[in-house]
Amino acid sequence: MSAFWNARARGLSPYVPGEQPRGERLIKLNTNESPYPPSPKVIEAVAKAAGGDLRLYPDPGCAGFREAAAARHGVRPGQVFAGNGSDEVLGFAFGAFFASAGEAGAAPAPALFPDITYSFYPTYAKLWDIPFREVPLAADFSVAAADYSPPWGGAAIPNPNAPTGMAMPLPDALSIAARLEGEGRVLVLDEAYVEFGELDGSAESAARGIDSHPNLLVVRTLSKSAALAGLRVGYALGSEQLIEGLCRVRDSLNSYTLDRLALAGAEAALCDQAYYDRINGKVVATRNRAAGALRGLGFEVLPSAANFLFAKPPGMGGGELCLALRRKGILARHFNRERVAGFVRVSVGTDGEMDAFLGACEEIIGEGGRRG
Amino acid sequence: MSAFWNARARGLSPYVPGEQPRGERLIKLNTNESPYPPSPKVIEAVAKAAGGDLRLYPDPGCAGFREAAAARHGVRPGQVFAGNGSDEVLGFAFGAFFASAGEAGAAPAPALFPDITYSFYPTYAKLWDIPFREVPLAADFSVAAADYSPPWGGAAIPNPNAPTGMAMPLPDALSIAARLEGEGRVLVLDEAYVEFGELDGSAESAARGIDSHPNLLVVRTLSKSAALAGLRVGYALGSEQLIEGLCRVRDSLNSYTLDRLALAGAEAALCDQAYYDRINGKVVATRNRAAGALRGLGFEVLPSAANFLFAKPPGMGGGELCLALRRKGILARHFNRERVAGFVRVSVGTDGEMDAFLGACEEIIGEGGRRG
Repeated sequence: MSAFWNARARGLSPYVPGEQPRGERLIKLNTNESPYPPSPKVIEAVAKAAGGDLRLYPDPGCAGFREAAAARHGVRPGQVFAGNGSDEVLGFAFGAFFASAGEAGAAPAPALFPDITYSFYPTYAKLWDIPFREVPLAADFSVAAADYSPPWGGAAIPNPNAPTGMAMPLPDALSIAARLEGEGRVLVLDEAYVEFGELDGSAESAARGIDSHPNLLVVRTLSKSAALAGLRVGYALGSEQLIEGLCRVRDSLNSYTLDRLALAGAEAALCDQAYYDRINGKVVATRNRAAGALRGLGFEVLPSAANFLFAKPPGMGGGELCLALRRKGILARHFNRERVAGFVRVSVGTDGEMDAFLGACEEIIGEGGRRG
Repeated sequence: MSAFWNARARGLSPYVPGEQPRGERLIKLNTNESPYPPSPKVIEAVAKAAGGDLRLYPDPGCAGFREAAAARHGVRPGQVFAGNGSDEVLGFAFGAFFASAGEAGAAPAPALFPDITYSFYPTYAKLWDIPFREVPLAADFSVAAADYSPPWGGAAIPNPNAPTGMAMPLPDALSIAARLEGEGRVLVLDEAYVEFGELDGSAESAARGIDSHPNLLVVRTLSKSAALAGLRVGYALGSEQLIEGLCRVRDSLNSYTLDRLALAGAEAALCDQAYYDRINGKVVATRNRAAGALRGLGFEVLPSAANFLFAKPPGMGGGELCLALRRKGILARHFNRERVAGFVRVSVGTDGEMDAFLGACEEIIGEGGRRG
């Protein structure tokens, strides 16, 4: 704490991202990155942009990128918002749409999100002074649409959810949007992982629902399925009035959050779906094989529609397994919430990386069994 | 206005950046970009990073860039904050340091900034619900340090100021910091343009003052003097406690606002000061020549320590001149504030661009004289 921080800065609960090791050689399965490189067309586009007009500001309207995203999803460019990663898009969405302490009325209704979910949500809520209520997942760790009900000042739900990896059926998601619409409130559907689920039918995007639900904001990222975590590009699809709301918050903080290189690379990525379907198909196949192998080792594995597995080892806690994996040079992630303390979240790597991970798990569990 | 916006989104006053024309061939002297390309080492570094690990998240600590900035300014890496352009850094600084409506006490003291200054400041203040008071410039358009006094919840001052281009003597700036320090409040000195003034001694950075003033935040950008407006990198220098305050706000919105390409390019730029002294020296020489020529045409030209001129044409308003220049394919900028409505702000281009601008001014003023 510093005397120079204002009340807001003192009251924040900053998000702590997963470890990004510098220099060490580790098998990195902790932040859901793609194990495969981005499309070669991305590299080409970036190299071309680097030799271009870096001395000039980027297009604040991000027109080229928005046109590419619109074409990809069958929507209009005016229904696309481009942001510096989906984190920024989500942060702006919380700032623009959810009932905050500044609303008319003494006690605004809380924004709702799952109790076990992306841990940035409560952080955003504190930044913008938004009251919130965490809705418990069902006993099977699924998001139950019926549990989302008034009083509410909006809702944010990842679909598929993280860190569980489980998807909510599209009609359930749209039913929440329809019920919120009547109250003039917004549903933010955070589809960071949906493309993996779409490949095997285990998840379905709500992108086509934005025309019938003016209060539905679908948030996407290029970090996972486009293998571009290092480029910081995300976007939102929604009605023009929602996009304008996001622009109002952005243009009150930083008019140009995407540089020329990121815009060029991201546009190229959106235009090479064939490449991404190929690498993401490999990720899904590896995921399914690894899930089976973990079950064979006695793990409880939640059904994943994403590029990671959420799994509970036999005979030890999730934190204990993560530490033991770290000693073997493998990074996975563990969350300190009571209901999921037994689990680890492991990103799907290459087949070789997953073999190393599975081998390490087998050893660690065997040692645990011999000790026990 | 949309029913889905919350009270905050409805109350914002978004910033409107200068025009970034797409496709048209214009002489662009409206957003203070460099007329020269960035260092070739920047392009090399970006190309190398593009072939690297774009699939992995960037370093959230921005360690390499912060080390380069620390070396450049003779400070410690812990005294450097890296941001997505100085706009983002300034936005976070307003959010972390200035007394906001959430402070204890019914009516927090206002943040102070000049009445004629970077027009993003009141926008930031509205975003974070910060009361503010605009302090009039002195009659000669300079920032008078003595006019900055309690009650105050902090202050933000560009040095050199924009759009006037005029610099405040360093001792004056430090005196404001010293007086604010006693009240536990922060001075943000926005040095977006200071490197141009340093080259001819017309402005001086306060970077060396951060060790003796723990409440002094010096904000810099690579957009202007490093010819990298398209890369979106800015930074702040200040005490560790101020840097931590900025990190708290950033990590409540978006942990990684700088992508791998921008980090690599920016680090390379900070390491090639010789190149930048050369191109910025040309800018300063061109600026001084153009200022003399404008005075010869009857313009009132404020003394500039930046890479732009703020000049009042004879016999017509600034808006009128801007429109006439636009018709001749030249973009300059005009501000609709009463005290400066007679002025235009023109970025310093190449010698050829300035000759075209000066020729156009001569024609337009001659036509005005014939009409009058």
